[in-house]
Amino acid sequence: MKPGRISALTIIGVGLIGGSLARALRRADAVGTITGVGRSLEQLEKARALGVIDRIETDAARAVAGADVVVLCVPLLAMEDLLRTIAPALEPGTVVTDAGSAKGSVVEAARRHLGDRLADFVPGHPIAGTEKSGVEASFAGLYDDRLVILTPLPETSPASAGRIEQMWRAAGAEVVSMDVERHDRVLAATSHLPHMLAYGLVDCLARMQESEEIFRFAAGGFADFTRIASSSPEMWHDICFSNRKALFDVLDRFGDHLAEIRRAVEQGDSAALLRIFTRAKNARDSFVLARRKRGS
Amino acid sequence: MKPGRISALTIIGVGLIGGSLARALRRADAVGTITGVGRSLEQLEKARALGVIDRIETDAARAVAGADVVVLCVPLLAMEDLLRTIAPALEPGTVVTDAGSAKGSVVEAARRHLGDRLADFVPGHPIAGTEKSGVEASFAGLYDDRLVILTPLPETSPASAGRIEQMWRAAGAEVVSMDVERHDRVLAATSHLPHMLAYGLVDCLARMQESEEIFRFAAGGFADFTRIASSSPEMWHDICFSNRKALFDVLDRFGDHLAEIRRAVEQGDSAALLRIFTRAKNARDSFVLARRKRGS
Repeated sequence: MKPGRISALTIIGVGLIGGSLARALRRADAVGTITGVGRSLEQLEKARALGVIDRIETDAARAVAGADVVVLCVPLLAMEDLLRTIAPALEPGTVVTDAGSAKGSVVEAARRHLGDRLADFVPGHPIAGTEKSGVEASFAGLYDDRLVILTPLPETSPASAGRIEQMWRAAGAEVVSMDVERHDRVLAATSHLPHMLAYGLVDCLARMQESEEIFRFAAGGFADFTRIASSSPEMWHDICFSNRKALFDVLDRFGDHLAEIRRAVEQGDSAALLRIFTRAKNARDSFVLARRKRGS
Repeated sequence: MKPGRISALTIIGVGLIGGSLARALRRADAVGTITGVGRSLEQLEKARALGVIDRIETDAARAVAGADVVVLCVPLLAMEDLLRTIAPALEPGTVVTDAGSAKGSVVEAARRHLGDRLADFVPGHPIAGTEKSGVEASFAGLYDDRLVILTPLPETSPASAGRIEQMWRAAGAEVVSMDVERHDRVLAATSHLPHMLAYGLVDCLARMQESEEIFRFAAGGFADFTRIASSSPEMWHDICFSNRKALFDVLDRFGDHLAEIRRAVEQGDSAALLRIFTRAKNARDSFVLARRKRGS
């Protein structure tokens, strides 16, 4: 057996994220039996038919018994109930991780329900995804060269953290660690706020009188800018509520910057406007360059 | 000679937009001699070396003498000076059009300087472009299946409007007409506002303390969302000042929608938040579907 190979993996929530993890681990021959858990039997059967999972289970507590690793890929607001349900059924040595886009709320729920099992809990967040959802959209290469952020707690054992790190590496990802608060602040800025802006913009335009015409004259830039507004409303609903503090902080900050642009235009301050746009262009160009170097 | 073929075309400002028009018209064999005008001799020589233009001229007034069609592709805030310069040199029968992203300010400038030559002025705006600029970035297919909006004035003669329409069709574009105010309103919503948001967001993040880390953890969604922030700062500076009224209107409207999202999160109004996100997703998905049907 390969070192670090997971004999029995349980994925709770087999959609884009969970399904792609399963496919990636199979591709690397890093997993034995995969049990998929979900609310929709139809979706689970689809996942099994696609070869993404081996076994179907609709009862989460039953599904975690005997697992080496359990990955929680459910919507953020479903995490608390799920943790409450599986806690009594977790066997010694089973490592639990999650894939939630905000970490503070998951950690709070874990503290409430996992008790002395926190040593085997490794909060995580793969920075990957597309605007699509569901197991049909999953693919083995989703995590290739992507970052996965782990936010281990003071209680988390190095062995458990190492096991989850190994799992994500086998799935093709690069793994980094940071603390929970920093994760939530950074993700609010780079992901949660942009989603709010894209949703807000498209909704704003859709409700304007001339909306049909407006969309007709939108070009490629608009299509790119708003791609993330095609993401799952349910998922983003949960993220907003789960990371509201950090999201509001960066929303306020953004509001100040937008007001600064507006003021420059109002006051005819050419130099200030050019300075803002140039600084943004330079930052964005460097970001793209750094991404290319990373090969993603 | 093909009907509608332009014997002598003068393009003032040979960058991405003007250069791509030249290439597209050559591809269609819809043009004879192309004279390129610009401030930078180096850029013009590059354009000639690339085969984009045949003749170089640095004096705009001299360059329009004898032209069948003159296309103004300079930044918006340079339009007024340019119109003042070329007006006395325009010969009867020469049709003038422009490619400015805002139309109200160009039309005002034209009214001030073209006088009784307004019959041969056809304001226009090709809805195409990339975040790149310069003649090196130009290509013949830029306008294929793209929309060009013409905003003819009450004074514009049908023959002149028809000539410009024919030119853009030969370049591969679909041509539609609308009035100046509506153009500026629609473009403020679909293009100018998104650019402000993208510039504002990137600048906001770039100025946060953790900015390096923040960009490191940005994923594909962020790259798409901010692509337009890599556009030319000078061009967008001009657009802001030229279309400020319509831009501020839609900025206010957007602010209301963003505040609505925030309120829903603050008040724990799940239903309202889901409604907004779902409406936005549906509108965005329909937009993408309509674009695919159009083949662009």
